[in-house]
Amino acid sequence: MKASSERALTALQNRLGYSFADASLLQQALTHRSAARDNNERLEFLGDALVGLVAARAFYECFPGEDEGVLSRLRASVVRRESLAAVARELGLSDCIILGESERKSGGKHRDSILADALEALAGAVWLDSTTEQAERVVGQWLSGALEQASPEGIIDPKTRLQEWLQARGESRPEYEVVEVSGEDHDQSFRVRCSLADRRLAAEAVGSARRRAEQLAAEAILSQLLETPNDG
Amino acid sequence: MKASSERALTALQNRLGYSFADASLLQQALTHRSAARDNNERLEFLGDALVGLVAARAFYECFPGEDEGVLSRLRASVVRRESLAAVARELGLSDCIILGESERKSGGKHRDSILADALEALAGAVWLDSTTEQAERVVGQWLSGALEQASPEGIIDPKTRLQEWLQARGESRPEYEVVEVSGEDHDQSFRVRCSLADRRLAAEAVGSARRRAEQLAAEAILSQLLETPNDG
Repeated sequence: MKASSERALTALQNRLGYSFADASLLQQALTHRSAARDNNERLEFLGDALVGLVAARAFYECFPGEDEGVLSRLRASVVRRESLAAVARELGLSDCIILGESERKSGGKHRDSILADALEALAGAVWLDSTTEQAERVVGQWLSGALEQASPEGIIDPKTRLQEWLQARGESRPEYEVVEVSGEDHDQSFRVRCSLADRRLAAEAVGSARRRAEQLAAEAILSQLLETPNDG
Repeated sequence: MKASSERALTALQNRLGYSFADASLLQQALTHRSAARDNNERLEFLGDALVGLVAARAFYECFPGEDEGVLSRLRASVVRRESLAAVARELGLSDCIILGESERKSGGKHRDSILADALEALAGAVWLDSTTEQAERVVGQWLSGALEQASPEGIIDPKTRLQEWLQARGESRPEYEVVEVSGEDHDQSFRVRCSLADRRLAAEAVGSARRRAEQLAAEAILSQLLETPNDG
């Protein structure tokens, strides 16, 4: 290992808040499958479970009034690829990931999937290198920002939120209608209209899947409703 | 709490290999949502993560030569409902689960979903009642039989196994064809034929989903192939 990369790994361990007893675990966790046979895929499998555990416990304790459906969605919002990749970027993993040549050339170190996988692999490596409880603390620290940002309001999808909003006011359910399908078979886009009969209100949105377009239309209606002062 | 149910809970804790400091957690873990508002659903969410963690670590250590795909499938084979329900039955949970009247009358205590959920909830309750590491040990003990039984050979699905078997012999891929769809829209069944052109061999199977029928047909062909002595 070169002195420069040793320095980089020391700096990384400072940012991670954990110093590896077995440096080969750190090395392996940072190694993408494009670079070596002895890569981070098995560690990622292991770390995935630990990350899930940490998120589950955090939400369980933080939201004593929420049911398991909300807790599951909260957890999913944090353990999803984009969210873990953002954490990996904050920890400065990009410049430490070891990639094969073609991945390096194509900018693999910026790719969400590679970053999220490396973060999970690091969690697995810390777990193997220490104890479950120490690993829980370390990973909890990495995720603290993402865990704090997640809120039940943020994770309930617009269609559900709209329906609950209307239900609470005794109004009838929204209607969704596909008003246009365009594009080739493999690249269609859907224009969906969401209407509230009781309010003679409608909004349209376009999405690459019908369900996505419905969500966007629901969101558009919701923002209209929430802007109307007498219903706030 | 009646003396008889106290005795039953003491016996259960002996079988679980864990004695609760906070008996109300045990009570809650055993309470199905049909019986009370303060039921085991949130604990189940928590325990699910712990059970996944224990299985992940066990397979990671037990199969150092297997890739993460095989490890994931091994874990899935143990954390799936039927498997956890079997563990719950071995631990004698059935007679300790607290159900609402209608669930009790309809034999809910024998239902896989109710048993598996209660087992996960108990894992979550042990975790809250002790430390992560103690909970890992206790849950590892519960799952030990299921973990030992799982093997890479056992978890690869029939379609994959069939394809790998044929590939190893340089034969062409099997073909799957839906030969009949019957039943109402919400309750269809699919008859699928799996054919091996190279061998002029075919088998049919019926399933409630196309994919399921394909798997069953692949399994039928596989068992024919494996019974043929000159290919064993």
